[in-house]
Amino acid sequence: MPNSKPIKDYIRTIVDFPHEGIMFRDVTTLFADPRGFRMAIDQLLHPYAGMQIDKVVGLEARGFILGGAVAHQLSVGFVPIRKKGKLPGAVISEEYQLEYGEAIVEVHDDAIMAGEKILVVDDLLATGGTAEAGIKLVERLGGEIIGCAFVIDLPELGGRAKLEALGMDVHALCDFEGV
Amino acid sequence: MPNSKPIKDYIRTIVDFPHEGIMFRDVTTLFADPRGFRMAIDQLLHPYAGMQIDKVVGLEARGFILGGAVAHQLSVGFVPIRKKGKLPGAVISEEYQLEYGEAIVEVHDDAIMAGEKILVVDDLLATGGTAEAGIKLVERLGGEIIGCAFVIDLPELGGRAKLEALGMDVHALCDFEGV
Repeated sequence: MPNSKPIKDYIRTIVDFPHEGIMFRDVTTLFADPRGFRMAIDQLLHPYAGMQIDKVVGLEARGFILGGAVAHQLSVGFVPIRKKGKLPGAVISEEYQLEYGEAIVEVHDDAIMAGEKILVVDDLLATGGTAEAGIKLVERLGGEIIGCAFVIDLPELGGRAKLEALGMDVHALCDFEGV
Repeated sequence: MPNSKPIKDYIRTIVDFPHEGIMFRDVTTLFADPRGFRMAIDQLLHPYAGMQIDKVVGLEARGFILGGAVAHQLSVGFVPIRKKGKLPGAVISEEYQLEYGEAIVEVHDDAIMAGEKILVVDDLLATGGTAEAGIKLVERLGGEIIGCAFVIDLPELGGRAKLEALGMDVHALCDFEGV
């Protein structure tokens, strides 16, 4: 019998990971299912049908799984934004705040040309800190961001509001309440 | 004019990364090019045309970019093999040797069902240590590995011989000499 389960029902919740009090939304169960993964990639792209996109940018590490698939479906290039020290060539960097301390993300300084139209992809929009840092990197290279697409939005954490305040078009496939 | 550049010519070499004496083969320039990335994903899949593949397994982190795209092209599920501590659910682990010390990779213990046919994907086959650990994880869950597909093989480092000795079918899109 055909299966009509929505995206959200493929996502598993792990209690107290990575530390007590966190409800971790685990997309690996979505990705491991043939129908779930197919629908996730297709639905990430629906708002952008017919629009020019030159490159897909994925945020390390789960954004690589989604971003690689999205770029391949569009027949465009893929650009990784990685944690500090992982990219071998010349990079530009952005620091952002974590719950405790800071983190740094980087992109190769020749990975995006001025004027290229970019789709940013990640699995989860929480506080939006990583996505904001990624957006800044793309814009410093002259990329024009067409949209930011996520599988999950956690609206209570304010990431969508933060990215929209930066002028971004935010697309998410489902919401979860709580952190 | 149509471009007939081979895969290998899209790959950039960075000298002395991550440390002196290493010629780092940088696939980000391949991935960022629309034709390069399209060809890489398509060519990774050519040997398996018409074969049953139930899931694609990708090794962290560049194997996620390739594996996500390959799984989407096949309309099958994707399973990540990650470094220790990154996966939120119950895992099984394998330790392997690095140049200095050991590393541990993990997979969710419910990510592969006994008898599922698996394609393992990564960007680079060097000594084969990470791939061998990944193969063991898949086989411990009862997965049947149809093939191991890489963009780059460094034959002098012995990875292909090591995986073939385990009974694996190894597919690589190009070779580089030297480390």
